[in-house]
Amino acid sequence: MTENSDTLGATEKEIMYATHHAMVKSGYAELSISRISDELDKAKSTIYHYYDSKDALLLDFLRFSIDRFESTVNTTIGAHPKGDLDHIILTLLPCQLKKEKRQLHCVLVNIMPHALDQEAFREQFTEIDNRLKTIIEKTVRRGVRTNVFRDVDPAQAAEHILAVIKGAMCTRLTTNREAATARARTSLFSYIDSHLMA
Amino acid sequence: MTENSDTLGATEKEIMYATHHAMVKSGYAELSISRISDELDKAKSTIYHYYDSKDALLLDFLRFSIDRFESTVNTTIGAHPKGDLDHIILTLLPCQLKKEKRQLHCVLVNIMPHALDQEAFREQFTEIDNRLKTIIEKTVRRGVRTNVFRDVDPAQAAEHILAVIKGAMCTRLTTNREAATARARTSLFSYIDSHLMA
Repeated sequence: MTENSDTLGATEKEIMYATHHAMVKSGYAELSISRISDELDKAKSTIYHYYDSKDALLLDFLRFSIDRFESTVNTTIGAHPKGDLDHIILTLLPCQLKKEKRQLHCVLVNIMPHALDQEAFREQFTEIDNRLKTIIEKTVRRGVRTNVFRDVDPAQAAEHILAVIKGAMCTRLTTNREAATARARTSLFSYIDSHLMA
Repeated sequence: MTENSDTLGATEKEIMYATHHAMVKSGYAELSISRISDELDKAKSTIYHYYDSKDALLLDFLRFSIDRFESTVNTTIGAHPKGDLDHIILTLLPCQLKKEKRQLHCVLVNIMPHALDQEAFREQFTEIDNRLKTIIEKTVRRGVRTNVFRDVDPAQAAEHILAVIKGAMCTRLTTNREAATARARTSLFSYIDSHLMA
């Protein structure tokens, strides 16, 4: 189940983009095979040919989104590990969460309950975390190697940074605590300064 | 909507306990007014007299759970702020998550999507965060005042600690990353040592 979305055929990819557009336009609650087929401009039967349920489609959509998500985070391998870490944090916890990104984050929260008891969804959430953690860990490791960072445990530091990001993302989407995201971001930068910087 | 569960009458409290038992026994997915009335040993109509929908009941259940949740975290105001902070972290991120606690945490993840677009649920999630943050912040403030901790910003430190806890809780419930909780806990203790301890 760790295959990525490169294994999707042309029509399946079209279905994924249509699912994405349907979600951004009308949100997760309104999502249905009918709604997706409107976006796709193809009959519902085309979708049912590939996916026998909304859950099966959601699972592929999750895989598809992970790749796109990863590519936005992983854009720069700049000259400086500190700058790269800042970029990762600002990408995942931006000051302003634009509509399209918010919708994608909301999709994750909407699908999350499936991961409590369905192994296939659990594996996808594991995969998201592992990919993000790898990106952060590699950056910290590079910083340690080049003496920009202290000799910290990169895996541990990455886990800490990822936990703050996930906690703050969740707070932003599900509460009215407007100041919390900015505060978490500031405290993360200060953690990097005091805990990682050599 | 910040009223606490003390405002609930005797029958409403019985309904809350019945809801809790139904969830622990059969999980959130199986939860229904029928299932709750089985636990309550009263007719469904009794529940409908107080709650006109499952959502209305869930909202009261969330309020009811927050109070119980808070009291488990807030049990000790010990002699040492560092010990109290450790207690809070170990309560929210225990090494072993017992069945009953896991079910309650799962309920939060299951209800979370409601908070994306329903203000009443959003207010309850805001309330949960505010209560936990207040407990952590007070403890840090006490540590600063008694010179156990450095002169850090208690609100900022509390936000950081809360974000790590929420992120790690979410990871524990929705992924197969078994080592992640222990790592987040260790990194949180090390954050307290290096960032807070005088």
